[in-house]
Amino acid sequence: MSGCPYFQRKFVSNSKQHLKEDENDDSQTGINKASKGGLIYGDYLQLDKIVTSQVLQSELKGNKIHDEHLFIVTHQAYELWFKQVLWELDSVREIFTSGHVRDERNMLKVNTRIHRIVIIFRLLLDQFAVLETMTALDFYDFREYLSSASGFQSLQFRLLENKIGVPHSQRVPYNRRHYRDNFGDQESELLLHSEQEPTLLQLVEQWLERTPGLEEDGFNFWGKLETNIFEGLGREKEKIEQKPASEMKEEMMAELIKQRDIFLSLFDEKRHNHLVSTGQRRLSYKALQGALMIYFYREEPRFQVPFQLLTSLMDIDTLMTKWRYNHVCMVHRMIGSKDGTGGSSGYQYLRSTVSDRYKVFVDLFNLATFLVPREWVPKLDPSEHTFLYMAECCDSSYCSSSDDSD
Amino acid sequence: MSGCPYFQRKFVSNSKQHLKEDENDDSQTGINKASKGGLIYGDYLQLDKIVTSQVLQSELKGNKIHDEHLFIVTHQAYELWFKQVLWELDSVREIFTSGHVRDERNMLKVNTRIHRIVIIFRLLLDQFAVLETMTALDFYDFREYLSSASGFQSLQFRLLENKIGVPHSQRVPYNRRHYRDNFGDQESELLLHSEQEPTLLQLVEQWLERTPGLEEDGFNFWGKLETNIFEGLGREKEKIEQKPASEMKEEMMAELIKQRDIFLSLFDEKRHNHLVSTGQRRLSYKALQGALMIYFYREEPRFQVPFQLLTSLMDIDTLMTKWRYNHVCMVHRMIGSKDGTGGSSGYQYLRSTVSDRYKVFVDLFNLATFLVPREWVPKLDPSEHTFLYMAECCDSSYCSSSDDSD
Amino acid sequence: MSGCPYFQRKFVSNSKQHLKEDENDDSQTGINKASKGGLIYGDYLQLDKIVTSQVLQSELKGNKIHDEHLFIVTHQAYELWFKQVLWELDSVREIFTSGHVRDERNMLKVNTRIHRIVIIFRLLLDQFAVLETMTALDFYDFREYLSSASGFQSLQFRLLENKIGVPHSQRVPYNRRHYRDNFGDQESELLLHSEQEPTLLQLVEQWLERTPGLEEDGFNFWGKLETNIFEGLGREKEKIEQKPASEMKEEMMAELIKQRDIFLSLFDEKRHNHLVSTGQRRLSYKALQGALMIYFYREEPRFQVPFQLLTSLMDIDTLMTKWRYNHVCMVHRMIGSKDGTGGSSGYQYLRSTVSDRYKVFVDLFNLATFLVPREWVPKLDPSEHTFLYMAECCDSSYCSSSDDSD
Amino acid sequence: MSGCPYFQRKFVSNSKQHLKEDENDDSQTGINKASKGGLIYGDYLQLDKIVTSQVLQSELKGNKIHDEHLFIVTHQAYELWFKQVLWELDSVREIFTSGHVRDERNMLKVNTRIHRIVIIFRLLLDQFAVLETMTALDFYDFREYLSSASGFQSLQFRLLENKIGVPHSQRVPYNRRHYRDNFGDQESELLLHSEQEPTLLQLVEQWLERTPGLEEDGFNFWGKLETNIFEGLGREKEKIEQKPASEMKEEMMAELIKQRDIFLSLFDEKRHNHLVSTGQRRLSYKALQGALMIYFYREEPRFQVPFQLLTSLMDIDTLMTKWRYNHVCMVHRMIGSKDGTGGSSGYQYLRSTVSDRYKVFVDLFNLATFLVPREWVPKLDPSEHTFLYMAECCDSSYCSSSDDSD
Repeated sequence: MSGCPYFQRKFVSNSKQHLKEDENDDSQTGINKASKGGLIYGDYLQLDKIVTSQVLQSELKGNKIHDEHLFIVTHQAYELWFKQVLWELDSVREIFTSGHVRDERNMLKVNTRIHRIVIIFRLLLDQFAVLETMTALDFYDFREYLSSASGFQSLQFRLLENKIGVPHSQRVPYNRRHYRDNFGDQESELLLHSEQEPTLLQLVEQWLERTPGLEEDGFNFWGKLETNIFEGLGREKEKIEQKPASEMKEEMMAELIKQRDIFLSLFDEKRHNHLVSTGQRRLSYKALQGALMIYFYREEPRFQVPFQLLTSLMDIDTLMTKWRYNHVCMVHRMIGSKDGTGGSSGYQYLRSTVSDRYKVFVDLFNLATFLVPREWVPKLDPSEHTFLYMAECCDSSYCSSSDDSD
Repeated sequence: MSGCPYFQRKFVSNSKQHLKEDENDDSQTGINKASKGGLIYGDYLQLDKIVTSQVLQSELKGNKIHDEHLFIVTHQAYELWFKQVLWELDSVREIFTSGHVRDERNMLKVNTRIHRIVIIFRLLLDQFAVLETMTALDFYDFREYLSSASGFQSLQFRLLENKIGVPHSQRVPYNRRHYRDNFGDQESELLLHSEQEPTLLQLVEQWLERTPGLEEDGFNFWGKLETNIFEGLGREKEKIEQKPASEMKEEMMAELIKQRDIFLSLFDEKRHNHLVSTGQRRLSYKALQGALMIYFYREEPRFQVPFQLLTSLMDIDTLMTKWRYNHVCMVHRMIGSKDGTGGSSGYQYLRSTVSDRYKVFVDLFNLATFLVPREWVPKLDPSEHTFLYMAECCDSSYCSSSDDSD
Repeated sequence: MSGCPYFQRKFVSNSKQHLKEDENDDSQTGINKASKGGLIYGDYLQLDKIVTSQVLQSELKGNKIHDEHLFIVTHQAYELWFKQVLWELDSVREIFTSGHVRDERNMLKVNTRIHRIVIIFRLLLDQFAVLETMTALDFYDFREYLSSASGFQSLQFRLLENKIGVPHSQRVPYNRRHYRDNFGDQESELLLHSEQEPTLLQLVEQWLERTPGLEEDGFNFWGKLETNIFEGLGREKEKIEQKPASEMKEEMMAELIKQRDIFLSLFDEKRHNHLVSTGQRRLSYKALQGALMIYFYREEPRFQVPFQLLTSLMDIDTLMTKWRYNHVCMVHRMIGSKDGTGGSSGYQYLRSTVSDRYKVFVDLFNLATFLVPREWVPKLDPSEHTFLYMAECCDSSYCSSSDDSD
Repeated sequence: MSGCPYFQRKFVSNSKQHLKEDENDDSQTGINKASKGGLIYGDYLQLDKIVTSQVLQSELKGNKIHDEHLFIVTHQAYELWFKQVLWELDSVREIFTSGHVRDERNMLKVNTRIHRIVIIFRLLLDQFAVLETMTALDFYDFREYLSSASGFQSLQFRLLENKIGVPHSQRVPYNRRHYRDNFGDQESELLLHSEQEPTLLQLVEQWLERTPGLEEDGFNFWGKLETNIFEGLGREKEKIEQKPASEMKEEMMAELIKQRDIFLSLFDEKRHNHLVSTGQRRLSYKALQGALMIYFYREEPRFQVPFQLLTSLMDIDTLMTKWRYNHVCMVHRMIGSKDGTGGSSGYQYLRSTVSDRYKVFVDLFNLATFLVPREWVPKLDPSEHTFLYMAECCDSSYCSSSDDSD
């Protein structure tokens, strides 16, 4: 009726309700009432809470400082978006955990939601521009009133990091205390809990380990790849040896040996596990194989969406690092860097978190080191290897249950 | 306690409190307590309200739709930023209304805050990218539950428009009703009130009317400019007349006459007032003169910041129009355009609001039509016209009172 | 040689060359020479041409105006990116034209390149911010020297529009002349040629017409959908009729009839063809069916990437419209709107191009009007309908030839 | 006549030419010819050079790789914008060098151009999103053909760094060679020259040293500030001493002493000079005083634009650092980080350049460490200290010569 731009499908709305008539006839009546004056935009969004939550400490202390309002709103906007990121992240983790991801019809959902996190983080980077309209001097005028409330002492951000897979063992101690000790009891509990749940990294790892084509008694990607690479390198070596002696020949041979070492390291499972134990690699050996397989066969129908997913995961990592770096830059501007005058500087702490240690999907980046010419990639014959264009779908009963878990 | 990145100036903090010791010794103790565990980030931001205000209608109706959460959070983020824009706008209007703007030390504040609104609107444009990750199909799944809650039936946005100066007489009726009738009583009251307060446009107009140099018995900018322009045009005419007859000569003469008509219209006060009465121009004749004066002498010390301000005001206008256009594009994608099948479409309504009718500072844009060669601009002799590099400052008592009004 | 950040795979590089040794041994030697001092960054990018092509007309006329440089560089940057967009667009059209798109391994390429166009257009929108640092007054100082060189009289942009599928019959005449008449002979020829080649719209249309599942003697999506929708509407009607008379009942019935009309129009092929003939719809009836099928079954493995593609196509449309609108806003600021003083205004012309007439994939937007509850979408049984998770792949010989066409 | 959107002021154009009739009557005829078919958009922009400079090395080697085109265009777009940044930077340096900056009418120009650099760098950050649509695998396919052409071995970027004031002594050696040795002779010459010219940093330094109010025999800002601060600290100390013994008292005293040390360091000229000699500070002692003075009195009419300038200078620093960091992130994605396998990695080199060592205006950031309560800032009485609202303007003869230098 009311001609509101968005919601003109009232009839269908009702019709759908009717289909479920027995269960919720009341709610339907409610809806119809709503449509007569009904659900108000401001009530729906709970704006009475959202736009009344800006209480300036400076005003409470009798010295209202205009810019504190910006400080509050900006941080609240960050927290709203963190909430949304957690919402997406939890739903993706749920799809993985419940096993619904085995039905490849759920890959679009996973991919779309992970991509949405990417888009949100891009916005969060842009958002710094707003806070940067406040100068150090404007900030100085009210920062005393904030006492210990650290600007980005954000529970949600820590939860986010934990759920994605920032390893707590790699965290830089803050103020010489365990990161959880900077939170209250209840929050600390939530953080501990989030450390114990399966992380996105772990779930992606398990999924990568199941990449079709890795089976040693099947296509045996890894075995074939190893053979091809070392045969290829062998042919190269012969070619170089046949050249007349020259500086260039020596260079080429040195380069060849370097390459060979790189690939020897790739196929050395023990070395891999050692790097995992020191935190330099994060994926299991099998998962690494799956990722490389998706890289090489990304154009096969079945791997197109998985490849996009891996790309988005790297995007998230990169954006979170950029976010930290932007934060560092802003803090430098707001409070300086102590200028060599000593003192435990927040700036220095933040600086140290802009580190590859905090990268979760670092292995996906490093796979760029292990690329090979297309000729060395094990050949696929579509007529033989149907798994590459034939997706796994569960029967409808299973899938409908998947729907519920939405 | 210590080591928080932002707030290391505890001593100064205390010291400042001490200076006011008598009045608020208690609050100071409070602060010190706060610094021992004290003011918590989450409490300060009232996150218990901010991140718990996402209630999905679809979930209430027993059919939780994942993407409704994004819909809610995005709109809440918009509202948060609208709140901030209103905060800046009200503070600027207060500086103008109270007369503090006469002390030019307040121009930096005005300029900075108006510029901040520009930066916020840029972010709001970027923010559409997030909601655009939701497809029409995702939206369809829950839009029935929203019944009449129009997506952008936003009180704050309407207040914003009113306070800047969107004329209510120019508003496109929505659903054949006055725009206020789409709101509840209390909100309608607020809107009516905002229509009656002085708008940013009116305040800027008054300020422009006071532009130094407009005084007819002083520098008399307008008189001098009129003389220069018509003398210049006269010289042009003579030059053209002396040329041998040719197609080009005719063209040049036609162009000259067109130019002359444009400038005749500029100096025709009655015509100006007529255009104001029809809503095609919005500034008074005197204010228009002030704006053009600031344009021509923008490099003079006293006009540098005023010129930036005029530029930012156009930015706001442009960005608000772009925001409306982005909104139109999104609605087209979400609900289609009814495809010629009839029905009062929200899309068509929104489309009609992307119009110059909604531009507030349209006169500033149109001044581009009245530019002239530098040679025609009345000359200034700095040694004579000191008003151009000599700012007005009030005595300290007045200015300190200005400080309070911050 | 060594140490360059990007290009450390020299050995592999050489090795790959060796595999083709017979054909191009010389080039390989060339490469090795290059690696000793070799290919210079500046030569590679032809910077001698790129960064020396900024000749200021104002300087030639003896009155160098600083900001003309910005004007030139900005437009050159636009043209560089238009070149890139054409590069992507042509490659996508080639994949479609050659029939390689039938091998679904090419869908990733198509999708990635179309998505890249989206990202480039986003940048082009951001790029306006740079030119907007130039005020109308700065522009006035040199715009006389540009005489008739229209700011966005861009051959490449017109080619782009033609190749995507902006219909020349819908073009707003510019200066009362056919759009091609504003270009030189050679350029006009290129434009004519681009009108005659298959457009992206046409190629996508053909591809949509082949959507698996449309076959009337197979899954028969369209027939099943029609049945389901009208059965559903019938059930709704019965439900409403059983209700006691009330205002609400009447409203619901009116809404039902409106819905029914919308769906009647959807299944009316003649009406569709009429709308196509008037330019209100652009896709064939069959292609429209394919698009709606992809919408409804977007989560099926085989339709995930096609669905992304449709989304990106809408993105391009939206971004091109936004680009035009941003352009309009900038022109308004730069030269005013003639302020009702008559004269053929460029501003008015540009304003008229921000229209749905210029939208190419308008049908994809309008499909949002034809969404239905999930219950009405014809059911799929994966065990029966394998076409939905089984991609088409050509044999390897064909596919390798596809590779060449890259 | 021709109705081109931008350039309708032909008459005025001619008229202006007429005023200079004697010198360039020919050029005027040229213009009129131009207006009859005349200056073509494509010729003006030299598009024959701009859009034909994309030569793919991979194509030359007989193995055309689609994505190399993107690689080339992106880098060319970067170089175009670097050219523009250099154009702005050189013009600003010229205004400073020529002394025209003493006429404060030139401050708007300086400020606008520096701000434009900020806006361009923001665009350059956004531009990474385009190149990021290319995956490591796409890049691998052609990176062998680039041999030694390092992706960002950009002469213009190095010139830019030098002209702003990145100290060559602080540069991280690249590939164990002096940075200039990675360029050809002619380029190396240009770089050497740019090292010897006055940098933006030095010019800003000289300008800051002249900040009115620093004169010891005048307002004596520095002397007054020192007195106020230590008197203030003294009062604090007394207050604390009077408190009863407690943990809090001790903490406050410790904090006080820390503060005192910080301020002692501020007023210790020798220490400052030592920090300058080690590269930790970059501005002279006097310039630092000027900057702090502008900070504290930023609302005074005369300091409003200078304060904006200091803010923009910090923006440039921050954006250049962010640019470097974005570059690092992209390289990590493109070529990996060598994964602990040894070898001189470009990634590690680039990582090391994201350092405060490369920050030019680091002192402006660090001033945030030396802020004090408003009560401690030396009071100004406008009636006494007219220099704060009275700008310096040269007589018209001087200023017109300034105009020429544009």
